[in-house]
Amino acid sequence: MSEDQELGITEQKEYNPGEWYAEVVEKAELASYAPEGMGGFIVTRPRGYSLWESVQDNLDRWFDETGVENAYFPLFIPEDYLEREKDVVEGFDPEVAWVTHGGHDELEERLAVRPTSESIIAPYMAQWVRSHRDLPLRLNQWCSVVRWEATETKPFFRTKEFLWQEGHTAHEDEAGAWEETLTRLDQYQRLYEDVFAMPVMRGAKPDHDKFPGADTTTTVEALMPDGKSVQGATSHNLGQSFAEAFDLTFSDEDEVERVAHTTSWGLSWRALGALIMTHSDDQGLVLPPTVAPEQVVIVPIWQEDTKESVLQYSAEIAAELEEAGVRVHLDDRDERNPGFKYNEWELKGVPLRLEIGPNEVADGEITAVHRPDGEQTTTARDTLVEDVEAHLDEVYAKLYATAEENLEENVREADSPEEIMGTIGQHGGYVRTPWCGDEACEEAIKEKVHAEIVAVPLDESAVEGDHRDNAHRAEAVHEPGDECTV
Amino acid sequence: MSEDQELGITEQKEYNPGEWYAEVVEKAELASYAPEGMGGFIVTRPRGYSLWESVQDNLDRWFDETGVENAYFPLFIPEDYLEREKDVVEGFDPEVAWVTHGGHDELEERLAVRPTSESIIAPYMAQWVRSHRDLPLRLNQWCSVVRWEATETKPFFRTKEFLWQEGHTAHEDEAGAWEETLTRLDQYQRLYEDVFAMPVMRGAKPDHDKFPGADTTTTVEALMPDGKSVQGATSHNLGQSFAEAFDLTFSDEDEVERVAHTTSWGLSWRALGALIMTHSDDQGLVLPPTVAPEQVVIVPIWQEDTKESVLQYSAEIAAELEEAGVRVHLDDRDERNPGFKYNEWELKGVPLRLEIGPNEVADGEITAVHRPDGEQTTTARDTLVEDVEAHLDEVYAKLYATAEENLEENVREADSPEEIMGTIGQHGGYVRTPWCGDEACEEAIKEKVHAEIVAVPLDESAVEGDHRDNAHRAEAVHEPGDECTV
Ligand SMILES: [Zn+2]
Ligand SMILES: [Zn+2]
Repeated sequence: MSEDQELGITEQKEYNPGEWYAEVVEKAELASYAPEGMGGFIVTRPRGYSLWESVQDNLDRWFDETGVENAYFPLFIPEDYLEREKDVVEGFDPEVAWVTHGGHDELEERLAVRPTSESIIAPYMAQWVRSHRDLPLRLNQWCSVVRWEATETKPFFRTKEFLWQEGHTAHEDEAGAWEETLTRLDQYQRLYEDVFAMPVMRGAKPDHDKFPGADTTTTVEALMPDGKSVQGATSHNLGQSFAEAFDLTFSDEDEVERVAHTTSWGLSWRALGALIMTHSDDQGLVLPPTVAPEQVVIVPIWQEDTKESVLQYSAEIAAELEEAGVRVHLDDRDERNPGFKYNEWELKGVPLRLEIGPNEVADGEITAVHRPDGEQTTTARDTLVEDVEAHLDEVYAKLYATAEENLEENVREADSPEEIMGTIGQHGGYVRTPWCGDEACEEAIKEKVHAEIVAVPLDESAVEGDHRDNAHRAEAVHEPGDECTV
Repeated sequence: MSEDQELGITEQKEYNPGEWYAEVVEKAELASYAPEGMGGFIVTRPRGYSLWESVQDNLDRWFDETGVENAYFPLFIPEDYLEREKDVVEGFDPEVAWVTHGGHDELEERLAVRPTSESIIAPYMAQWVRSHRDLPLRLNQWCSVVRWEATETKPFFRTKEFLWQEGHTAHEDEAGAWEETLTRLDQYQRLYEDVFAMPVMRGAKPDHDKFPGADTTTTVEALMPDGKSVQGATSHNLGQSFAEAFDLTFSDEDEVERVAHTTSWGLSWRALGALIMTHSDDQGLVLPPTVAPEQVVIVPIWQEDTKESVLQYSAEIAAELEEAGVRVHLDDRDERNPGFKYNEWELKGVPLRLEIGPNEVADGEITAVHRPDGEQTTTARDTLVEDVEAHLDEVYAKLYATAEENLEENVREADSPEEIMGTIGQHGGYVRTPWCGDEACEEAIKEKVHAEIVAVPLDESAVEGDHRDNAHRAEAVHEPGDECTV
């Protein structure tokens, strides 16, 4: 096998999406598998981690603008804390990794490696909140959590340890908690749409698929090109269950002691999996310019006699773009030819390639090539910066349009169980269909096709009482379906 | 006890530095102790975490400028990986927390919660490095590590879990590794001196106190007001020991396979402990403006009839400062009087207080008060922004000068074991004295006074061979002393 073939992607996205995905992640140098004995863990390489840093930069800015403060809580949680909220125990107990020894000694009480931190954060919020003046209290932490699920590793999508942010807030009343829940859902949607070039669908999870202990779990769902839905992030209105379990109360304006309402919300590196899966192709990784470590790569093309002038021109272009704030890389390696460089940077997902040869130098031009579709344009040197910025915007728009088209084409209506199963069996994607709210009806479908209820409509105006009652009676949006189609 | 007394610091720094420190950390809302059963763990509250974010912002920028890329490696390390470098096993084995169960199942091989990550990073560097063109390779990760030391908890100074960054690099030769070691030491020194307003002392650790497996451990040491030295950060030249243990080799320009040289370097949240301990006083936390969450607090002083004009003037001042990029907070709470507010913001370490009453409004002035010494100045509204910036610079300079004076006064010469012990017993601080390099000579001193060798001089030009040979024969700088004073 030649070095070129080794470098390139050999699997096809359409026919072997799983193998193709694994190959893109490895060859674009995003992540590696952890050592033997550590199935389910991955090593996040710099090119992968920089995508996570983009997530952090954006969310941290938006969180800060909306009153959230970052903090850091212990990695471990005592077993009896985890047990205080009964739904949490039931939900997470089978997946917890346990620390039993410190040094040479066995611990008196074993410690859970956090699977999520409600159980250690809520008791501190309870200490810190005394009066209504301390509310709302909004905390967030960036950390990793561990959930010991026995599934095949799929980098970013399915890993036993994953990076995420978890936000935890407390409010005076249901209205405050519900507004918070939706504010975070909005921010997650904004991350997907304005940073990842991915349209998403908003909704609520059906009751039997909520976060343990939550009143309502809201979700943004992204449709993958293979017709499967990915839960992009969730924002939970926890009602008063955690506040009651951990005595999170406050004295209101009339000095009456009341139980707070809490929320929690999280986005994990699964978002990176969805990003990679959505835009990439058989040439490798495709990234929107918003998150690409290099937005532009310059590949100079020279012969012995033109080398000096081409490299000088290229260096000037690179300097000008860098000055303008563009993340640009000049690939002036001697030991590689331009074709090799094209392949390598396509594989690594650089959104825009600038080709510069003797002709470009002579004419004061630059040839620009879009990563997603190979569209090639000639740009005048005089308008370099504005043209490059326009090209980057165009690349973003192309990626968004393709993803949007995929979503629009794959939301279908269905009016009977047969139609649901036929539609999903043939096309994947979502089916929009009425559902009564009974899990049993979903089971009947699940048994026949690999599909489940992804979301029910979110009645965002419903603040008082159980706003989800309406949703149950309204039509449901599913990756799959159910049988209550009237 | 009145609410005011509860708020304020009751211990004195000079007489009970340990209790005073714990009180400052708690009352300035920097950190809380973890739940029962989790001795040694702390909860880092937003005001504490924001200090850590300042560290991250600065170091990340400097690391990036000097070729370092961030990555993320697994939280756990298989036991057999940890065992591959023998010094590391011996050094860390007694302090490792072990995960033995995942969900309901016992693991086949127990996993160490990382105490440091050389053992999991080096094998991946070995995979990624093929040729000299892949070198230098510079990785860093921000994470927490766990070391099960059975000591009393002291927030930031002594905790079983701590936040840090750990850098790991590979180089072609000893010169590259040594230059890297010093580059990071420079950056740590810069953090202390230019961001934390703390002078530090550079040096190397004696052989018996090096990082396990290292050729040389370099350190920046900060002298606390109580006369004790804090190891502020360390940068290790690991030589070839890890590269050999993990087969980290590369083919050089002549296609000859060679073993790489590696380094590692880390700064933990102990730096925050040193920062808090150095500048704070009996009124509470003192922070340099570089890291303070609020650089300026505005306290308006009104009566019923002046309230509107004072608050409006104050709001204009706040807006103007914010516009200029100053982190400013206007404390316009109705329910607290100005005296209470002064105390609270002094306790929380805001570097500059602006007092605005009817006189200030009438005269178009502002009264500015420096946190460290209470110095009070009247400033004209016209020159608000430049004056405030000058005040913040002055506060920084005052803090640095005090810390520098403490350091200069507390480095003493000693010429005999008696003199070392007498000097340290009386003053604490450092003693500069010759030392032969033998650990036994340190032990003899250690038995008599609670003191040890903090650092030996660093011969920074010595790249080839064992540059530490000279240091052994040169005079040594100690917190304490030894007996080889000729
Ligand atoms: Zn039904
Ligand atoms: Zn000696």
